[in-house]
Parts: sequence; C-alpha cells; structure tokens
Amino acid sequence: MENQSILIKNTTIIGSDIKKSSLLVESDKITVIDDNLKNIDADVVINGEGKVLIPGLVNTHTHLSMTLLRGYADDYPLDTWLNDYIFPVEGKLEGEHVYAGALLACVEMIKSGTTAFNDMYFFMDQVAKAVEESGMRGVISHGMLDFGDEEKRKAEFKESLRIIEKCHNTADGRIKVALGPHAPYTCSTDLLNWVRKKADELKVPIHIHVSETEFEVQQIQETYGARPFEYLDKIGFLKEDVLAAHAVWLSESEIDIIKDKEVKLSHNPVSNMKLASGTSPVAKMMEKGVNLSLGTDGAASNNNLDMLEEMKIAALQQKVANLDPTVLKAGEVFKMATRGGATALGIEQETGTIDVGKKADIVLVDMRAPHLTPFRHPVSHLVYSAKGADVDTVICNGQILMQEKELLVLDEKEVLSQAEESAKDLLAR
Amino acid sequence: MENQSILIKNTTIIGSDIKKSSLLVESDKITVIDDNLKNIDADVVINGEGKVLIPGLVNTHTHLSMTLLRGYADDYPLDTWLNDYIFPVEGKLEGEHVYAGALLACVEMIKSGTTAFNDMYFFMDQVAKAVEESGMRGVISHGMLDFGDEEKRKAEFKESLRIIEKCHNTADGRIKVALGPHAPYTCSTDLLNWVRKKADELKVPIHIHVSETEFEVQQIQETYGARPFEYLDKIGFLKEDVLAAHAVWLSESEIDIIKDKEVKLSHNPVSNMKLASGTSPVAKMMEKGVNLSLGTDGAASNNNLDMLEEMKIAALQQKVANLDPTVLKAGEVFKMATRGGATALGIEQETGTIDVGKKADIVLVDMRAPHLTPFRHPVSHLVYSAKGADVDTVICNGQILMQEKELLVLDEKEVLSQAEESAKDLLAR
Repeated sequence: MENQSILIKNTTIIGSDIKKSSLLVESDKITVIDDNLKNIDADVVINGEGKVLIPGLVNTHTHLSMTLLRGYADDYPLDTWLNDYIFPVEGKLEGEHVYAGALLACVEMIKSGTTAFNDMYFFMDQVAKAVEESGMRGVISHGMLDFGDEEKRKAEFKESLRIIEKCHNTADGRIKVALGPHAPYTCSTDLLNWVRKKADELKVPIHIHVSETEFEVQQIQETYGARPFEYLDKIGFLKEDVLAAHAVWLSESEIDIIKDKEVKLSHNPVSNMKLASGTSPVAKMMEKGVNLSLGTDGAASNNNLDMLEEMKIAALQQKVANLDPTVLKAGEVFKMATRGGATALGIEQETGTIDVGKKADIVLVDMRAPHLTPFRHPVSHLVYSAKGADVDTVICNGQILMQEKELLVLDEKEVLSQAEESAKDLLAR
Repeated sequence: MENQSILIKNTTIIGSDIKKSSLLVESDKITVIDDNLKNIDADVVINGEGKVLIPGLVNTHTHLSMTLLRGYADDYPLDTWLNDYIFPVEGKLEGEHVYAGALLACVEMIKSGTTAFNDMYFFMDQVAKAVEESGMRGVISHGMLDFGDEEKRKAEFKESLRIIEKCHNTADGRIKVALGPHAPYTCSTDLLNWVRKKADELKVPIHIHVSETEFEVQQIQETYGARPFEYLDKIGFLKEDVLAAHAVWLSESEIDIIKDKEVKLSHNPVSNMKLASGTSPVAKMMEKGVNLSLGTDGAASNNNLDMLEEMKIAALQQKVANLDPTVLKAGEVFKMATRGGATALGIEQETGTIDVGKKADIVLVDMRAPHLTPFRHPVSHLVYSAKGADVDTVICNGQILMQEKELLVLDEKEVLSQAEESAKDLLAR
C-alpha cells in the first residue's frame, strides 16, 4: 500500500490557482501536477472528469466520541444541556464507548471530505486506535480539568503524559498528541503553568477552549480581574503553539493579543449558534490577519461533522452579523477550512494545500449534481451549494480511504452497528 | 398510474405522533395508516425499514429558474449584485431559459425532499410546463413591477391574467396561480389596489416580497409616511390570502398587523443572511402565533434549494440572534417546513401532514447514514443532522417521483445537461 502510485486524471485542481490538470501521488506524497501525466501508468487511475480536487478539509475542534450523543439533548439552555444531559452521561463513559464513537466520527468525516482534525476528550488512546485504523490524520489531547483540586490536577498531568508517551508521532506520523487544558474557567493557574512548561519542554502544541460564552468571560474577570485572553497572556501562556477554540467574546485588546502572540483560532459557528453562545468577531479578525480555522465542535452541539456545511454557515453568520455581504467571501472561508486548519494544527508544511512535495491529503468532490449545476466558480459551489454527500473520493497520507463514495479502509456497516450498540449501552448505564 | 396503490411498510411515521407503522396510498391519497397493513397486496411495495416518513417539504418562496444563475455572483453588496449581475442577465431571459432553469430546480427539489413550492418569476407558463412534467405541486405567479409606469402596469395586468387563464388549476390541480406584485417599493399603489380587487374576484392568492432590507423600509416610509406592512394595511391590501416573503425588518405594531390580518409569512434565513439583509424576528412572531413557513429564495442568493439545510439554519440563526438556545426548537422548525408551508400556500386541507384522506405528498428519508447514527429523535436528526442527499423516496399526489434516490419521472442527466447549455446560452447573450 505504502508504495502505490495513484494517478488522478483530467480534474479541476483547486491549488494556488484553479486549473484543469492531472496529479500523481507516489507513496504518501503529491509528486507531479501536470497536463501530460494522463498517459502514464500508475497502480490506481482515477478519472477526475466532472470533479474538483481540493486539499482534505481540516476540522480544528472536535470531540469525536460525542457522535454517540448526537441528538441526545437539543434546544435546552446551556446549563441544562451540560449538567442534566452531557456531564452525567460522560461520567459513565468507558474506553469502549470512546472508541466506537471515534470510529463513527471517522466514517462521517471521511464521507464528508475531512482528512485531518484536532480532538480533545478522554480515553485518548482509544481515539488514537480509531484514528490509526481509519487512515486519517489527527492531533489528539486528553482534556484536563482540575477545578483547583490538586489531586485531580496530578492525575491529569499523569494521564496527559501517558497519552503523549503512548501515542505521539504514531501511525506513520499521522497521530500527534497535544496538551489539552480544557478552559481557563475549569483549569487552575497552576495547571495552565504546568501545561505551558511541558509544551515547551516536549515540543507539543496546546488545545484549549477560550471565551465560548459571555458568562465565562464574567467568571474569569471576577476571579482574575482580567478577560480570558488577557489573563492567559499575563501568565505567559500564549504562544504560537496555542490553538484556542470558540473565541466568541473578545475585546479589541484581546484581538490584538491573539494577533501579536500568533495564537491560532478554531472558529465553531454552528456550535456557537446552536448553543446560543454568540457570534465571534471573525470578519474583524480576518482583516487584522489573525490565523483562523474552522471546527465543528462535538456532534452533540452541531449535530454533524460536515465541514462543507460549516463553511457555508460561517460565511452566512458573519455576513448577517456585520450586515455586510462582502465579508468572509467563499475563497476566504475555503482557506480557513484547508490551509488555515493545517496552520492551526502546526502541519502546514505537510498538508493544507495542493502542492508538489506535500503529503497526499486529497479530496475529490463530484460536481455533477443538480444543486451544483451549472458548473461555474468551483469554490463558490463548494462553500455555498455543496454538501458532505457530494464528496466522491478521499485520500489521506497517500492511502485511498474512500473511492467513488465507497469506504475502502473502514467497514461502514460494521462501524455504524457498533456505534448504535455502544450508544445504547452507554445510555442504559 | 393514477389508480396505482403504494404500500410503505414498517417505517417510522412522523405524523401527529411518531410511531412505527405502515401506510397505504391509493390513487392520489393516503387511505390507511395501520400496523396490520404490511401483508396486503399493492401495486408497489416499499420497505420503509431504517427510514422515516414525513410530509413532503413545502418551499414557500422560490424563483426556480434562477438556478441558472447559481454561483454567478456571490459576496457582493446588494446593489452591485442586483444592478451589475442579476438584473442585466434577467433582461436577456427567454422562455426557454426559464423552462430549463425550472426543470433543474424541480430535479433539485425532488432529490432533497420538497414536493410543493411557491414560485414568482417571468414566463410563468414555461414554469408551469416544467411543474406539470415534474409531477410536483406548485403555486406560481408572474412577478409584476411597474415603478409607477402606467404602460408597464397594464402589461403586467395582462400577463398576470393570461397566466391565470392558461395555468390555474391545471395538471390535475397540482398547479395553482397566484397574483405576484413584486414588492411595495417596485409596485405603485394603483397596481397593488388592482391586485387586491382581482384576488377577491378570482379567488387566487397573493405572493409578495415585503421588508427584505432596512433600506426598503426607509424608502417606503419616505414615500408613504408609514412602514411597509402599515402602508399595505392602510390601503386594505392585507388579508389571509397574502403570503409575504422575507419580512425581516418589522416593528412591534407591524407584527400585530400581520397576526391580526392572518397574513402568511415565508421566512428565508439563508438568503437573508447571504445578502446580509438582516434577521427576521421569527422567535417573537412564533410566540405571538403568526403563520410561519420556510423558503429558500432563488438559487442566486442561497445557493441551493435544500429545505433540510434551511430548517437547520433557521433554527441556528434565531438561537444566536436571541442568545437563547430554546427558541425555534426542532419540532417547531419542522412544522414551519411542512404544515406551515401548506397553510401559507392555502393547501393545508390537501397536504402538509401525514393523515388519512390527505393527498399523498410523502417523503422517505434514509436514516442509515453515519451522520444520522445513532438513531434517536428523528425530528432532531432531520433538522440538525440530515441533508437533502439523505432523501430516499418522494411521492407527490400519489405518484412516485423518486425511489431509492433514482428519479422516475424526470430524466436527471438530460435535465442537467439542458440546464448547463441554457445557462451558457444566457450568459453569452
């Protein structure tokens, strides 16, 4: 498998420009992009006619295993949702549920064109097992919470180091491990200081939730006398290796801090809208040159992992919030979901664009559908008209994970039936 | 075809309650819903296992033929979009383009579970021809604009009457014709008065755009000294037969007028967000008991006709705008897209719910997909997780338009290729 070559012929390639061409994958890399390729031999030949070829989409904020809780609690106030539904079930989670939910998420992501993601949850070696089997690329982190409790904090340190030790740089380098302090309101300053130190020492990135709700900002202000990003900056936590999810409630000076410290953001519009958290000032941050990417968050607050849908809703939300239809143009939001995502995950040297020498993380979208007719600006169609179900073929790290809508590595029926059973078992506990 | 019977076995029926049962269609009607049906004979037997059965979705504001302009102009200010892109091309439209675009829209709507719609455009006998061939149900209206010009006004009267004469109650009653004054800012009071009189006389409904943008409200206030719905009420235009699209910028007193006069509203969240028109106070109107329905608007400002997507985005937009996750619950937005739509179109006696005696406008959605696993609350999955592509089978007026994702009445390949050619021809003019 590792040394196979794949030729994708006569397709519309969305690279640094948009052109009709052919592309060769050898081993795990894109080795040639050239019109004259079409007559060469390759182990696998894919006809790209009628399709567009894009970088695999990058989902920069997930809780994969929460697919098991999809549709479990909708339309509730945030505290009811968390305290009466999500937390009690999460308290009963075992590794087997996390594994089944993560596999289900991998099937869903592959089928909708995502090749890389950034996941925070528990039992992360079980997530790593699912990722390894799926052929996808992922950064995973154990979600750490101490609520100021020293015993709990020490246990979180231990578990985080165990996951790094066991999983970092495994699966041919497809799996990386990050440190995952949950949020400034659930983690003590001691915990955050330890994370900062360990991240420097071990050269692993940091994944954290910041400023998701207005209530959280008030809480941090009361506790630390500063807004969340100001507080994190003050304790020296913010560097270019920090990926902050949500970032909804931001002051002007916090936006400047984010920009100056080169913090990466994961914008999560669907989850922020569904939970009524608020509207992140994304258009303004884009103007200032902040590193922006897109994430779906968990399926319990979305309720799917479809990055094509996330792109559309991101653009729509910013346009109406700013009463300006020119903000978050199709090309800009597409960049957030591809190159921006790779940058956020620290893997932009390897992936995120279609270029010779990069890892072959490639998605073909079939444009021969009524809702994509007439064929016109492909990026507009991808952002505003397409759906996950239009994804035709997915390649990650040079391996074909799906071809003509059929999964080749994971067994879809088996994964769905395992997940159905696992969800029943979890809720019956 | 007309006398055939269709048995749908062992499916989850979303009716007045949600239950596993079987359903029989005879001729154009739902005749039995009963568990014991599963062993009877029928001309066609459909296995509904793993699927949910819902009323055909009703799209209450469309410009079908604008599918030809999908992706033609995105991310522009509204006046640039209209004056530099949409209006110039629309000036070159011929009946053949309108026909090709409407057929493309019918294919797209059927494939995403819509069985009925409300369309306003030009060359409406060409739209009627497409609707007749498609097997769908539609209310169509010639879009009238006079900008105060008497000659133009008379021509609009003539064309409107011609379309009513030619098309009203045709195609076994599937096609009805409405009067379509475009909007208060493009139509003179004389035109609106004539429409009101003719609607009473001919017993046809009215389809109009009202208060889509804040600029429009200012314009009407300057011209008539009243806000749009106040002005329309003052001239006696508003009755229960009026379906107003958009209704974004509303005062409290206008909401009361809408409620008191039993005006029907078509809420168009995706278009209103994409063009940055604003956020309609839907949650507040729902509380007051206003008749609400959902529409996609034309594909040039959406850019698709997927009512499942429209439901999700409607709920998300209201939740974040009100900072309240409990507004526009899944069940409420589902009702807007089904029964609310039928009421808006004045066909709630015939369709909009799954009940014995109603016309067989039925959609089966396949729930055996990763993004719909685990199977749980089906209405939550339909609103928050499903996509048009999950629609499996569509029946309208007792005729199967699509079975297991294959179109049976229209020839998809042919329609797509005609639309592609027609769009090229239109833009080359």
